[in-house]
This record gives sequence, C-alpha cells and structure tokens, in this order.
Amino acid sequence: MHSSLFWLVPVASVCALGFAWWFYRAMKAAPEGTPRMIEIANHVRAGAMAYLRQQYRIVGMFFLGLTLVFAWLAYGLELQNGWVPFAFLTGGFFSGLAGFFGMKTATYASSRVAQAASESLDAGLRLAFRSGAVMGLVVVGLALLDISIWFLVLTRFVEDADPAHKLLVITTTMLTFGMGASLQALFARVGGGIFTKAADVGADLVGKIEAGIPEDDPRNPATIADNVGDNVGDVAGMGADLYESYVGSVLATAALGAAAFVSSGDTSIAYKAVIAPMIVAAVGTILSIVGIFAVRVKSGASQRDLLNALSRGVNLSSVLIFIASYFVLRALALPNYLGIWGAIAVGLVTGIVIGKATEYYTSQEYSPTRNISAHANTGPATVIISGLGVGMMSTVIPVLAVVIGTTAAYGMAAGNWHFTPDSIPHGLYGIGIAAVGMLSTLGLTLATDAYGPIADNAGGNAEMAGLDPEVRRRTDALDSLGNTTAATGKGFAIGSAALTALALLASYVEELKIAMLHNNQESFVLRSGEVVVTAYASITQFTDYFQVNLMNPKVILGLFIGSMMAFLFCGLTINAVGRAAGRMVEEVRRQFRETPGIMAGTADPDYARCVAISTAGAQREMILPSVIAVAAPILVGIIFGVPGTFGLLGGGLATGFVLAVFMANSGGAWDNAKKFIEEGHHGGKGSSAHMAAVIGDTVGDPFKDTAGPSLNILIKLMSMVSIVTAGVNVAFTLF
Amino acid sequence: MHSSLFWLVPVASVCALGFAWWFYRAMKAAPEGTPRMIEIANHVRAGAMAYLRQQYRIVGMFFLGLTLVFAWLAYGLELQNGWVPFAFLTGGFFSGLAGFFGMKTATYASSRVAQAASESLDAGLRLAFRSGAVMGLVVVGLALLDISIWFLVLTRFVEDADPAHKLLVITTTMLTFGMGASLQALFARVGGGIFTKAADVGADLVGKIEAGIPEDDPRNPATIADNVGDNVGDVAGMGADLYESYVGSVLATAALGAAAFVSSGDTSIAYKAVIAPMIVAAVGTILSIVGIFAVRVKSGASQRDLLNALSRGVNLSSVLIFIASYFVLRALALPNYLGIWGAIAVGLVTGIVIGKATEYYTSQEYSPTRNISAHANTGPATVIISGLGVGMMSTVIPVLAVVIGTTAAYGMAAGNWHFTPDSIPHGLYGIGIAAVGMLSTLGLTLATDAYGPIADNAGGNAEMAGLDPEVRRRTDALDSLGNTTAATGKGFAIGSAALTALALLASYVEELKIAMLHNNQESFVLRSGEVVVTAYASITQFTDYFQVNLMNPKVILGLFIGSMMAFLFCGLTINAVGRAAGRMVEEVRRQFRETPGIMAGTADPDYARCVAISTAGAQREMILPSVIAVAAPILVGIIFGVPGTFGLLGGGLATGFVLAVFMANSGGAWDNAKKFIEEGHHGGKGSSAHMAAVIGDTVGDPFKDTAGPSLNILIKLMSMVSIVTAGVNVAFTLF
Repeated sequence: MHSSLFWLVPVASVCALGFAWWFYRAMKAAPEGTPRMIEIANHVRAGAMAYLRQQYRIVGMFFLGLTLVFAWLAYGLELQNGWVPFAFLTGGFFSGLAGFFGMKTATYASSRVAQAASESLDAGLRLAFRSGAVMGLVVVGLALLDISIWFLVLTRFVEDADPAHKLLVITTTMLTFGMGASLQALFARVGGGIFTKAADVGADLVGKIEAGIPEDDPRNPATIADNVGDNVGDVAGMGADLYESYVGSVLATAALGAAAFVSSGDTSIAYKAVIAPMIVAAVGTILSIVGIFAVRVKSGASQRDLLNALSRGVNLSSVLIFIASYFVLRALALPNYLGIWGAIAVGLVTGIVIGKATEYYTSQEYSPTRNISAHANTGPATVIISGLGVGMMSTVIPVLAVVIGTTAAYGMAAGNWHFTPDSIPHGLYGIGIAAVGMLSTLGLTLATDAYGPIADNAGGNAEMAGLDPEVRRRTDALDSLGNTTAATGKGFAIGSAALTALALLASYVEELKIAMLHNNQESFVLRSGEVVVTAYASITQFTDYFQVNLMNPKVILGLFIGSMMAFLFCGLTINAVGRAAGRMVEEVRRQFRETPGIMAGTADPDYARCVAISTAGAQREMILPSVIAVAAPILVGIIFGVPGTFGLLGGGLATGFVLAVFMANSGGAWDNAKKFIEEGHHGGKGSSAHMAAVIGDTVGDPFKDTAGPSLNILIKLMSMVSIVTAGVNVAFTLF
Repeated sequence: MHSSLFWLVPVASVCALGFAWWFYRAMKAAPEGTPRMIEIANHVRAGAMAYLRQQYRIVGMFFLGLTLVFAWLAYGLELQNGWVPFAFLTGGFFSGLAGFFGMKTATYASSRVAQAASESLDAGLRLAFRSGAVMGLVVVGLALLDISIWFLVLTRFVEDADPAHKLLVITTTMLTFGMGASLQALFARVGGGIFTKAADVGADLVGKIEAGIPEDDPRNPATIADNVGDNVGDVAGMGADLYESYVGSVLATAALGAAAFVSSGDTSIAYKAVIAPMIVAAVGTILSIVGIFAVRVKSGASQRDLLNALSRGVNLSSVLIFIASYFVLRALALPNYLGIWGAIAVGLVTGIVIGKATEYYTSQEYSPTRNISAHANTGPATVIISGLGVGMMSTVIPVLAVVIGTTAAYGMAAGNWHFTPDSIPHGLYGIGIAAVGMLSTLGLTLATDAYGPIADNAGGNAEMAGLDPEVRRRTDALDSLGNTTAATGKGFAIGSAALTALALLASYVEELKIAMLHNNQESFVLRSGEVVVTAYASITQFTDYFQVNLMNPKVILGLFIGSMMAFLFCGLTINAVGRAAGRMVEEVRRQFRETPGIMAGTADPDYARCVAISTAGAQREMILPSVIAVAAPILVGIIFGVPGTFGLLGGGLATGFVLAVFMANSGGAWDNAKKFIEEGHHGGKGSSAHMAAVIGDTVGDPFKDTAGPSLNILIKLMSMVSIVTAGVNVAFTLF
C-alpha cells in the first residue's frame, strides 16, 4: 500500500521551505535604510517579539493542560488512542513556528521595503511581495512537513491486522493534530486581533481625533504599538488561520477518503484516496512557487500594473493546478477521477467568486461602498446604518457560492445527486477535495496577503523616519494595493474556513466510528431492530442510530446554542477590544499630559509602555473567549450527546460563516468609504463627511480585524474539539 | 367526540370582544380636550388610516395572487385540500381587522389621554391602559373567534369515515389559516417598521440635529408622520405579530396533539389533546381580563406605583392561569396531564425570564446600558461598538432560556428525555403547549405594550397643542413607563415567535403526512427496506424516509441559506429605512427652505406631505423583502426538497432568533443609554456625550423597530409557507 506519488508531499515541503529561506536571505541582504529607520524597525520588532513570547506562554499553558487531559482520556480512561496527545502537540508547535518565522520576516522587511521604495515603486513591490512569500511558503511547507512525517510514522507504527481499519485509524488520528493548529490559530487570531485593534483604535481616538496629528506620527506614543499590531494580527494571525484551514481540509479529506473507499474492499484504492488531497496540496505548493516568480513588474510600473502582476500570478497558478491535478488523479487511477477533478475545479472557482464578491462589496470602485460615502453627508448614524446594510446584503453571494459549489462538488464526486448510503461518502469526499482545491494556491495567496501589512509597516517606517513624502506616496500605493488583496484574502479565509468546517463536520462521523470501535462497541442496533457492524456501518446508519435529524429537539437546541455561540464570541471579542482600547486611550492621554515635550517634538514618547498595554490587554482578554470556544462543544456533547453536538456544529457553522462575512465586509466597506472621501469626494479630508466616515471606519476596525476573523477559527475549532472528544460523546451523555 | 369544555373558546372570544367594546366606548366618552388637541389628533388619525388603506391595498393584491395559487394547487393540481384557500383568507382578514380596530382606538385615545393627564397622572394611566387593552382583547378575541368558527365548520363538514384521520385533516387544514395571519403580520411589521423609522429618523436628522428644535415640535413637518408611525409600527405591527404567534402556537399545538394521540387508538383522547391548547388560550383570555381590572392606581400615584400596578396585573393573571389550567387539564383527563401542566408552567416562566433579561440588558437601571453611556465620553464610535457588544452578549440568556425551557417542556410532556418514536410526539406537543402557556396572558401583555405608543402619542399631542409643561411631564412619565413595558414586550414577542416557530417546524411533518396521503401515497419504503403505512408512520420514520439528518448536504445547505435569509432580510429592511428616511430628510429640508414662515411659527408645515412620503416609502420598500420571504421556502423546497426545507427552517429559526434578540437589545440599550445621559449623567443634554448617544440611538432605531421585529415574522412565515406548500414538496423536487 504505497504509491511513489506520495513522495511529492515531502518534496514540495522541502521546496517551499527552501524557497522561503532563499527569499528570507535575499530580503535580509537588502539595504536596511537610515539609522533612524533601523531604530524604528527595531522598536517594532522588539514589540512584536515581546508580544509573541507572551502569547506563546499562554498558549503553552493551554496546551499543557489540554495535553494532560487528552493523555488522561487516552491512557487513563482509554477513550481514545494514544497518539492523540502527541498529534495535538505537533499541530500546535508547527503552527506556532510558522507564525514566528512569518513575523520575524515581516518585521525585518519593513525598513528594507521603505528603503527599496525610496528607489522605485517596483523595487518596493518586489521586496514586499517576496517577504510576504516567506510567510506563505513557511505555512504550507511546515504543514506539508507535519503531514508527511505523521503519515509515514503512523503507517509504520500503527499495528492493525486489517489494512482497511489501519487506514481509518491513521487518518482519524492525524485529524487530531488539526486541533493543535486550531487552538494555536484561536489565540493568534483573537489575541492578535485584540492587540492590533486596541492599538489602532486607541492611537486614532487620541491621536487623530483629539490631538489632530496624522496617522503614524512619531509623536503618538501608540504608533509603534499600531505597527506591531499589523504584524501580530494581519501576518501571524492570518497565517495561523490559514495554516489551520490548510491542514484541516487536507486531513479531513483524507479521513473522508478512507471512509468512502475502504468499503470497496480494495484497500489500495482507499490508500490512494487518502493521499490524493495531500498530493494535490503538494502540487499546488510547487505551482504556487511558479506563480510567485510570475509576479514581476517592469520599473516605472503603475499601480494598475502592480495589481495585474499579482492577479497574473494567482491566475497562472490556478490554471496550472487545474491542469496538473488532472494528471495526478489519472496517475492515481481513483474511480471516477474525472468527477473528483471537477470538485477541485469547483473549489478553485468558488474561492475566486467569493474573492470577487468581497471586492465588489468593499472596494470604493463599486457602488455599495460609494453609497456609504454618500451617506456620510447626513452624519455618522447614516454611515453606520448603511454600512451594516451593505454588510448584510453582502452575505448573499458568498453563501450562494458555497451552496452551489458544495452541491456541484458533491454531485461530481458522487456521480449523482442522490442521497444513498453508497453515494454520500463519495459526495462528502468531493466537498473535502473542493476545499483542498480552493486552498491549493495558499502559498501564493497568503503571500499577496502578508504583503499588505509589510507595505503598511514600510509606510509607517517612512513616515516616522521623516523620509521624502514621495517615498510615503509610493508606500501608500503599495499599501492601497495591499488593501484590495487583503479584502480578497479575507473572503478567501472565510470561504475556506466554511468548506473546511463542512469537511470536518463530515469527518466527525468517522471519529465516532473509531471511538465506538475503540470502546469495543463492535455493533449497534438501529430503531428498526436491524443489527449493524460498526466497522462497516454507513453514514446513514450512524445518523439514524444517533438520531441526528432535525425533529430531534436536541439537534434543534444545539442549533440555537451554535448560533448563539457565534454572537457570544463576537460580543466577547468586541467588548475586549473596547476595554483594551480604553486603557490605551488613557495611557496616550497620560503621556501627552505628563510629558508636554512629546507634542512639541522635544521629548520621545514611551512607545514600549503602549506595546506593553496592548500585550497585557490581549493576553488578559483572549482567555475567556478561548475557554468558551473549547468548552462549549465539550459541554454540549456531555449534556445533549451526539445529536446536540451536530446541531451545535451546524448552527455555529451556518451562523458563524454568515456573521463573519457580514462583519468582514461591513468593516472593509467602511474603511474604503473613508478612503473614497479622502480621495477628495464629498468634501474630502477634514470635511464633516470625512469625520463621519472616520467614525464608521473606527466601528469597522474590530468588525473586520478582530471579531470577523476570529469566527473563522471558532467554526473550525468547535468541530475539531468535537472530533478530538468524540470518545467522550460516545461513552457518556446526560440526556 | 365532543367536550362541552370546548364552548369555553367561543365564550372567551365573546367576552374579550365585549370588554374591548366596553373599554372602547368608555374611552370615546372621555373628554377630547381643546380644539387644537382635537385637530392634531385628527391629523394623526387621518394619516394612520391613509397608511392602513395603502397597506391593505398591497396586502390585498398579495392575498389575491396567493389565493389564486392555492386554489390552483388545491383544485387544479389537487396537491392540497380545498379548504386551504379559504382558511388562508380568513386568517389574513381577521388579523387585518384586529389591526384596524387597535389603531382606530389608539388614534382616538391620544388627545383624550393627554386631556386626562392634565387632570392627574393616574387618570392618564387608566385611560391609556384601558385603550391599550382594546388592542389586546380584540387580538385574542378575533383569534379565538376564527379558531372556534373553523373548528366547528370543519368538524361538521370534513367527510372522513376514519375519525382519527378526520382529526388530522381538520388540524392541518386549520394550521394553514396561520399563513394568512403570517402574511398580514409580515406587511404590518415590515411596512409599519419602515414607515415609523423613516419618519422618526427623518424628523430627528433635520429637526433635532440640523434645525435644533425639540422632539414633537409642531414646526417640524415630519412630526405628525412620526406620531402616525408610532401607531402603525408599535400598535398595528406589534398586534399583528402577536396575533400570528397566538394563532400559530394554538393551531400548531392542536396539530401536534392530534398526531401524538391518534396512535393511541382512542380518538376521543386525541380530540381532547386538540382542544386543550384552545381551552388554555380561552381560560388565559378570561383571566387576562381579570388582570386588566387589577391594574389600578390610587390618585397621586408615583411612577413606581404605576409599574407595580402593571406588574401586579400580569403576575396575578399568570398565577391564575397556572392554577386554572390544572383544573382544565384534569377535567380533560389527558394522559400524563400533570406533565402537560408542567409544560404550560415552563412556558409562563420562560416568557418571564426572557422579559427580565431584556430589561436587564436594555434598562438604564443596570450596568450594560450605563456602560454604553460611559463610552459616549470617547465619542460615537465607542458608543456604537459597545452597544453592538452588549446586544451580542444579551443573546445568551434568551437562548439558554429557550433551550432549557424547551428541554423541560419536552421531558415533562413526554414523561422522559428519550428520543423514541413513542415519546417524541408527546414531547413536541409539550413544546407547543409551552408556547401556548407563554402566550396565554397575551390579552394583558399586549395591553401593557399598546399602552406605550398611546402614552407617547398623548405626549406628542400635549407638546404640539402647547399644553402646560406639567402635562408633558406627566405624559413623559407614562411614556417612560411604556418604554420599560415595550422592551419587555419585545423580548416576549421574540421568545414567543421562537417557540411558535419550533412548534410550526414540528407540525410541518404532519402536513407532509397529510400531503402524502392526499397524493395517494398510502405507504413508503425506508432505506432499510421496511415498508411503512403512511397514516401510521412515526416522526422518526418520516425523517428517515426524507433523510432529514445533518449529514445530508441538502440539510446543511438549507441551514446556510436559512442563516443567510435572516441577514438578507435585515439588510433589506435596514436599507429600506435608510432610503425612505433620506427622502423624508429632503422633504423636511425643502419645506424649511421654501417656507421660511414655518420656523418663525407664522406658517403651518405641510404635515400630510410627510405622511404621504412615509406611506409611499413603506409601500414601495415592503414588497421586495416580502416576496423574498415567501419565495425562499418555496424555491428551496423545489430545489432541495424536504431535507433542504428543514435545513432552511432550522437555520432561519436559530439565526433569526439570535439576530432578532441582538438587534432589539442593541437598539433598546442605545435608546436608554441616551435617556440616561439626558437624565443628567456624563454632561447631560447638549453635551458631546449626548450627541454621541443620539447617534447611537439613531442607529438603533431601525435595529429595534424595523429589522429586529421583522425577523419575528420571518421565522414564523417561512415555516408557514413550507407548511402550506408541503404538497408541492412531496410531489416534486429537483435534486
């Protein structure tokens, strides 16, 4: 049961890490700029690393606690297999490592990009983009490395006479390392989101509005914290989020593949179905590197050229992946490989549609955002109302894209749209592989994403170091391009989270099966009296046995709780930003009051103090939402059992997805409505319309950068927790 | 198969209508006030009736179209029984009639309450409350009348040899008249909500903020429209909403009762289970009248006395209903009648808990709203952010109350918490009867609710007529009391909508059964090969047959669409308010510009023009959301069949409920945060904190009075549409 094609996975991992290293070295070799620029970059880097250390300390305690719990479940109660605690730990470790490298690169890059931009626009772009590519490649490289190692280790060490059963154990065990990635992502997104918005809102409220100094003014004590925030939120947070989606979709699809094909009796086919998503991801990684090299502009390029260059890279990679995956699937000779290939195409297209819809609703090039700007003429209230309206309307296309995409992927992979025990597992496998297809370009799309905050920081560096305004104009052009790619990237992150969560929800059944077998429940009895052998039970039989249907009140109650969880989680993170920002406002006011020399430019503000406040705020505030996100699936599982858990996951997924799109797009639209006014419309900067739009943007900050992205994690994490604690669900429920 | 207890239902109906008539006559006999007061009241009444005529015209066209469709489905395609079009029409007619009477009363009452308040506070309270009671009693009276007539007619004319089957046909046919009530409520809530907020926001934006004149100033051309809006939104809209919940919960419970007890073989028990919810509602109505008489204050009463008087009435009714329902259920001798009694108690308690939670999160007596006020010191952005945070957090208690209440009602009525085919139908019946229990005090709670806008209008009348400021102070005290009862009433409306929708969802299965029998599908085959006789199939067998489980992608896709529908519906209504308010702003500005005499007090503004603009705006804007709400369940049913429909209803219910609570409570909290500042905190009226809080309040207006309440209807209406078109779902689906 081996295919030489599998070796593509470690090879792609090494390629990705190798190129990441190469890009990193190239960036480090670039000139660092003036001593003042270096000093500022050092401040930001020190702040970012200080924050990361704090975050890892808290995450470490959580991991320690949960590892002990999992070890107790595995070795004490024998409710799950013994690999789980280790898989959990490595998932978290590799995710943390990717965040660390990505952020280190980003913080080294800022002054260098500012320096490059002082030479030419295209030099700035190239350096910023290559630095972003380090993050993208480290994420996919480490993910593929973790997958390769565990797959090889488990294939070798899991002992099971029945090869089919062995495959099921391997895939379901590997899935649990997604939980490690998930938890790491939770802290990165929630903590990073709180940090960055506390600093941003705090800096804006006192700096821009009260003191009337521009953004990134070195006199503002919170300005370094604001720049640190861009790194910890948009680089490390986004990276951890997508690392989790990437790992989760590949592993869930592998588990679904094992389940779909073992029943054919031919284990070698099942084996191929398991490695297919890994190979598609590997091929995607290699072709993403090709795409990275396709992003190049001639010197003297305009902003439109820059955007075209980025699009060209993404389009090229997508087309190449589409072609290459045909040959991969044909070589694997899976049954109905054309249908599976179709599902991959569906995933690629769905990602693009969601990205385009996000762009439409949040870019000032289109009417929704322009309408919000027009409402600024009647004051902040109408800006807020219309922004909320736009965000709500913007949920329609992404939801329909996911619905149509999922239906298409299901039908293609299953070969029909029937809901028979034979076709469901193949259809679910199709949904999983569509998610893998969507994420296959991650190495590149994450590069275009991480590029944004790097350009933003370069702009901050240029401003604070007092460089020629022309340099700032160039970095602003890079930053503005970054805003477009960031909006698209956010849509992509949400869409992939939804598809990944769907695949995880489907693979939860597989975990239940393994958990029942682990508990020596070799067979079970359906309501009809039929006796079913657990190992060969169909999904329909499982859902029948557990009564996971919508007339079961437990399922409905789970749905209610799931929907509520999404709102509760948002409320907690939004309130956290409010509190942390309030503390930042007090600190900035205090510094202005106690050191009058700051505003006069004769005294340096205490940047470190502001960084420390954001760090402490994020650290304190990330704990409660995290505990709730982990505890809810466990509690619901204990109280309402498997049906309640399914309801919770379904409700959390549906509401969380729609709510996340709403929040991200409202926030994005407010941001760009403000930019549209700053471009000179409706009175331009300083007009009352601009003031109203700034208020909209401030409201949007926690929407788009804290609560919205945190929901991506919530919907995946709750599934992951349920997957890992499936053994408990099977062993014990209250009702 | 008759029980003399049934006659309590028409008797209660006649009592309710009789007392309503008596209160109405008493109100009409009260002194009308000065000629100026009468003139203003005439303006408001003319505007309200003009609006109502327009609304009924559009509603009439919708009803005509849908009646033709249902007639074609019934007589052309023979997909449903022939009574449906008529039942649908009467449901709509009686709901419309209740709205008409309620609004007529409210508009006659305003000047009289102002006049009474000029005598004493308690005289004002008594008159306002008795006028509100007209609305409450007309709603429950007409609902019970419609129920009595149809039950008697169908019992007599439905021909079916099998008494059990006859009972199923009667109850499922009656359920379809809920769809008429539902559609009427949709237009009343959406149209009324858009009207009132277009007028309110428009009046505030130009009047308070631009021209700097106080609320209800007669120089503001939109002020009459604003007062009309209170009537069409808060009286007619709220009444139609609760009429629908009331009718829906009673009829759904009757259908669930028939389903639960026919299988016992003893049709007389099933008959009793069917009439039990009707009798509980009837007894509740009679005891609500007792409660109305218990609301009395001594002359010279303080505001606290007023609130205590209202609470005393509600508490007395609740306790009496709790006691009386024991005797009713014992007299009916239903099996496990103590459990059913317990479910009624659970419903009463759940309603109270949700009301209290709403009060906690939205009253300035408690910390959440006070914290929002404190955030006004840092400007509108932090007011908005903290209000959204409070609204999101406030979803936790209502959701948990519904979850715990539902679980308790299910377990008590079923006698256990097992999910067996024997226990589910009884448990679902328990959930339905809990909803009936919650709504049994409706005659009284609706009176306390309708009282608010009447007091508000009386204040407007006093202000515009230039009465002694002491009168305005008294009507303000009445109004402020109205705000507390309105917030509680909103929580009650949402909670009862959720429970009613749950009961409707459960009774959808019964409609499917009848539709299948109607299509001569006498039996069906399960996946296991088992052949099941349709008439005796259990809920578990139905959900198995239709594959309504959460691993069916169609269910999950339905969930996504349902969640999206809630947001889309909110987005549409919020944008509608924005547009309609924009037109109002232009009109008010035009009048101030073209007739300078208005501000000087020498020329009368053109009030009628503003009323016409709000009317036209509401009329135009209510169509699209309504069409979407009706079309979505039909389309999803055709495309994704029964599993997709279940997903849609479940997703819409869970997300819609949580979203509705969030919007209503955010809006209520902003409103009272502003009031708290106006009471003299954080700088009081005119401070920058006050300006920030006014912006929060303006954002909250469409939240709490348009989008939020409209969601109540959406979650019930979608179930109703699916129930009525169950025949189509069974006959044809695409996938």
